[in-house]
Amino acid sequence: MGRKIVIIGGVSVGPKAAARARRRDPDADITILEKGEYLSYAGCGTPYFIAGKIVDYEELMMTPAGVDLDTAFFKSVKAVHVHNKTMAEDIDVRGKIVRAVNVDTGERLEFPYDRLVIATGSMPVRPSLSGIDLQGVHVLSNLEEAIAIRKEMEAGRRRVVIVGAGFIGMEMAEAFAARGAEITMVELKDQVLPALLDWEMAILVEKYLAAMKVTVKTGVSVQGLSGDDQGRVTRVVTNDGDIPADLVLIAVGVKPNVTLAAAAGLAIGRRGGIVVDECLRTSSPDIFAGGDCVENRHILTGEPVYAPRGSTSNKHGRVIGDNLTGGATRYPGILGSTILKIFDYNVGATGLSERAARERGYDVVTSLSPGPAQAHYYPGAKLLVLKGVADRKTGTLLGLQAVGPGEASKRIDTAALAIAQRMPLGEIALADICYAPPYSGAMDNLVHLATTLENKITGLAVGRSPLAIRRMIDEGEDFVLLDVRTLAEHMAERIADPRHRFIPLEELRERAGELPKDKEVVAYCKTSLRGYEAMRILKGAGFGKACFLDGGIVSWPFALEKGWRTVDAERPPHSGQRG
Amino acid sequence: MGRKIVIIGGVSVGPKAAARARRRDPDADITILEKGEYLSYAGCGTPYFIAGKIVDYEELMMTPAGVDLDTAFFKSVKAVHVHNKTMAEDIDVRGKIVRAVNVDTGERLEFPYDRLVIATGSMPVRPSLSGIDLQGVHVLSNLEEAIAIRKEMEAGRRRVVIVGAGFIGMEMAEAFAARGAEITMVELKDQVLPALLDWEMAILVEKYLAAMKVTVKTGVSVQGLSGDDQGRVTRVVTNDGDIPADLVLIAVGVKPNVTLAAAAGLAIGRRGGIVVDECLRTSSPDIFAGGDCVENRHILTGEPVYAPRGSTSNKHGRVIGDNLTGGATRYPGILGSTILKIFDYNVGATGLSERAARERGYDVVTSLSPGPAQAHYYPGAKLLVLKGVADRKTGTLLGLQAVGPGEASKRIDTAALAIAQRMPLGEIALADICYAPPYSGAMDNLVHLATTLENKITGLAVGRSPLAIRRMIDEGEDFVLLDVRTLAEHMAERIADPRHRFIPLEELRERAGELPKDKEVVAYCKTSLRGYEAMRILKGAGFGKACFLDGGIVSWPFALEKGWRTVDAERPPHSGQRG
Repeated sequence: MGRKIVIIGGVSVGPKAAARARRRDPDADITILEKGEYLSYAGCGTPYFIAGKIVDYEELMMTPAGVDLDTAFFKSVKAVHVHNKTMAEDIDVRGKIVRAVNVDTGERLEFPYDRLVIATGSMPVRPSLSGIDLQGVHVLSNLEEAIAIRKEMEAGRRRVVIVGAGFIGMEMAEAFAARGAEITMVELKDQVLPALLDWEMAILVEKYLAAMKVTVKTGVSVQGLSGDDQGRVTRVVTNDGDIPADLVLIAVGVKPNVTLAAAAGLAIGRRGGIVVDECLRTSSPDIFAGGDCVENRHILTGEPVYAPRGSTSNKHGRVIGDNLTGGATRYPGILGSTILKIFDYNVGATGLSERAARERGYDVVTSLSPGPAQAHYYPGAKLLVLKGVADRKTGTLLGLQAVGPGEASKRIDTAALAIAQRMPLGEIALADICYAPPYSGAMDNLVHLATTLENKITGLAVGRSPLAIRRMIDEGEDFVLLDVRTLAEHMAERIADPRHRFIPLEELRERAGELPKDKEVVAYCKTSLRGYEAMRILKGAGFGKACFLDGGIVSWPFALEKGWRTVDAERPPHSGQRG
Repeated sequence: MGRKIVIIGGVSVGPKAAARARRRDPDADITILEKGEYLSYAGCGTPYFIAGKIVDYEELMMTPAGVDLDTAFFKSVKAVHVHNKTMAEDIDVRGKIVRAVNVDTGERLEFPYDRLVIATGSMPVRPSLSGIDLQGVHVLSNLEEAIAIRKEMEAGRRRVVIVGAGFIGMEMAEAFAARGAEITMVELKDQVLPALLDWEMAILVEKYLAAMKVTVKTGVSVQGLSGDDQGRVTRVVTNDGDIPADLVLIAVGVKPNVTLAAAAGLAIGRRGGIVVDECLRTSSPDIFAGGDCVENRHILTGEPVYAPRGSTSNKHGRVIGDNLTGGATRYPGILGSTILKIFDYNVGATGLSERAARERGYDVVTSLSPGPAQAHYYPGAKLLVLKGVADRKTGTLLGLQAVGPGEASKRIDTAALAIAQRMPLGEIALADICYAPPYSGAMDNLVHLATTLENKITGLAVGRSPLAIRRMIDEGEDFVLLDVRTLAEHMAERIADPRHRFIPLEELRERAGELPKDKEVVAYCKTSLRGYEAMRILKGAGFGKACFLDGGIVSWPFALEKGWRTVDAERPPHSGQRG
């Protein structure tokens, strides 16, 4: 008999590590202990199960070829012993023994090991709120809970309150909407998806959720839950009034499940996860850990981060499988790459947000780049707004955020590789990515973004963020906000500012003299292509303080002034479609 | 007045270079000469215009904000002089003068320059075929020709023959199908998309085209075209019989338009394009060239390649715009990244095909990896077949091909960056790309491919290509072809081979003794996941020659045997859904 490998946790990392170890070592004696009934299920699929898009939860426990991943499968195919409904209670690090209990029978079991893997995953944060134990209040923790939520929705719960607007809350909002629910999301922070997006990108998501009839309340704190005399939840009590509720989902985040590891004396990090080295070894040399219970190293900052993801777990499983069986595979760390679907919007991010980059002292350059995610003339081309964060010092990309109906995941993936490889912005802009009109413009959104960021670093482009312009308007600063779009566009909607000027782009070369050279002139258009062009025209004409509004009005996160107004220029305005 | 920049060609590189130069140098005197009427139109959009998906050809000449890119626009916004309908006839390199003629008036013009840009593009290859001048025979060369083809289709031409099954032919097939045409494609080579795909991937496209009612004739040479007494084409004459035709599109490739450059004595390369250095400078220091008229350097091989693309042109324009105005921007070269939509299939490639890699002496490892492009349990998940080509010596990826209804472009883009950055396969497999069930499995298709290639290089996985197995069957080699799927799968369809064995995966550990240890045992399943597992089980049990069929039957390019057959094992076959 070969080396004894014991794995605590049978959902994601555990089975993957077991399978990989088995392939590399046919003689190893491999045992998985899983406290629940189900093994190796796809936790990320539960929102789609609740939505009813996945009919049967057993689909979440099959391979692509429809093979059940049950204990018999692991035994016959992988030659892995699986003990389900078996809760590990204690690790004797010196004696190299895991002590466990069968949760049904109470039987006590001991599992000696040569190598141990801790894959205990995460658990949802349960805030200490009055009424949290009322019927109809759920914390999405496992498949059993998902089945319970789905049963409630099938029984006709209508008013759903989601506490927390992070990405589990978002995916669940779509799931509840598919069930015909009226949804209210309550978020303590002043924006949705605070761990993922900067404020002005989050606003785009909030506007879209409003259009999808989801009520979003940010900056609101939940103070408790109240119920009827049957013990069933009826209202969510907040500092902004009560919200009626037939079902409440608490989705305020997850935390690493480290009870067992901590009790065994393994090092726990400041993000709350088990500390592992690059080989995913814990502070005890014979014990590995991976997946949602560990901290990862951020590829850019080197800092420990807690960002649990199903894809990371899968990769951890592979690395651990190697290293359990004599390998020395290193896990390179993470960028926090994330994608999620919110109705028909794609929302993603990788690397550092502007906020995170500034906190870490980078000399930050940002750009907002909205544009069609396919060739603009391709029928049904969809908008995608990108925000890039770059480091002025090295000229490299630090982070990317994407929001919109256009395809986002490929821009996130391409950026993730570019960031990890420290590619200069100019190289990203010239990378040979593929192109055809159904997939992107000849200049892909990411190429455009990289180009703009590089132009900003070299000084060719000078942009102002929407937040900066908003502040300048609010504080009554002396500057000119210049709309360079067509008259028809200007009349339809524009940024509200009393000192607003309107000169269509094609008249700007001859009419630049109407503008003051000593003041900052902020040109804007729909997406910032014409705004940038206007800025270059003005710079060429000696306007040293010319700049443009980043992202144009498409990315403007504040209200726009709509309807006709009197144009402030004396000349007859150009009436065509140009500008 | 600043330096005089003259640009020959106003479709893609020219306007981009002009705009970039203008932004960097407000004083430059910039002139574009364009022989056609239209400037800066999106040539890649013409198939969608012919299909009628784009209603008005003017949409191809607008910016995303709906701005017409006409001569007045260039003059007023970019301060660029545009002479359309102006054909450059001669470059006096010593005197630095371009001589041109107005194609309408015959007026002769001279344009002195300090810096010249040649962006004369490509032209379709017109084979010398009898009957090529018949009415109804088209070579898609420019927007005017596209308008003519669309008019003919609107007039009700029904039987369309496309000569050439390269990517223009493919995009046009979809366009003609959208017009209700009956389509036949004739290709001289023995596969479709010969410049893009290896044979077994091309076969997947051919099967799909057949399902879409497009007749594909490969290995067939066109000998001429014959017409009626009105001079209108009626038939395409081939070595495989005549094909009736109401309209014929010749799409046998494009070649660089270098007449002007060659006459001026500039170096022309062995691929027929203008030779340029990394700064896109020709053999004459004051003359730059870019876009479809130049050769590019292949990032991996360093060889000159001719692979015209709209996205490359755009990037060339930017690089030239920099270098015209004092910059020293280098263009890094290409990988030939390509994507195209064929009805609802996505077909793409980047880097070297297996054929190209072998020709260049690489120690090639390949893998076929079919699988759902989204989480397999996600409703409507679509298949994507990837083929990877790797270099055993360096452990890096050389090329990727993708075919299927699943999302291909993001895998191509991610691979393109990984190839250009020479990322080891193990690093690609652990890259932090984003994941959620609507976008990929927890283990993305590309991650799975990179892992398999790495497993093959380390010897953990031993695969055989479908072509190798086909040859072994045909030559009656003494080996065992072992189906490890479920009984139901086996009964539905299987590879035809008289010595076929069937043992479901979950019975393999106990029944391995039924197989001969001295022979090669080739395990197969649907996608090769179970085949790989079977191979590891057999290796563990001492079957030194165990291997698996790459890509499973999903990627098997030959006919399958269907319907019930007698199972050759004596034991009662397992009846469940497992395996």
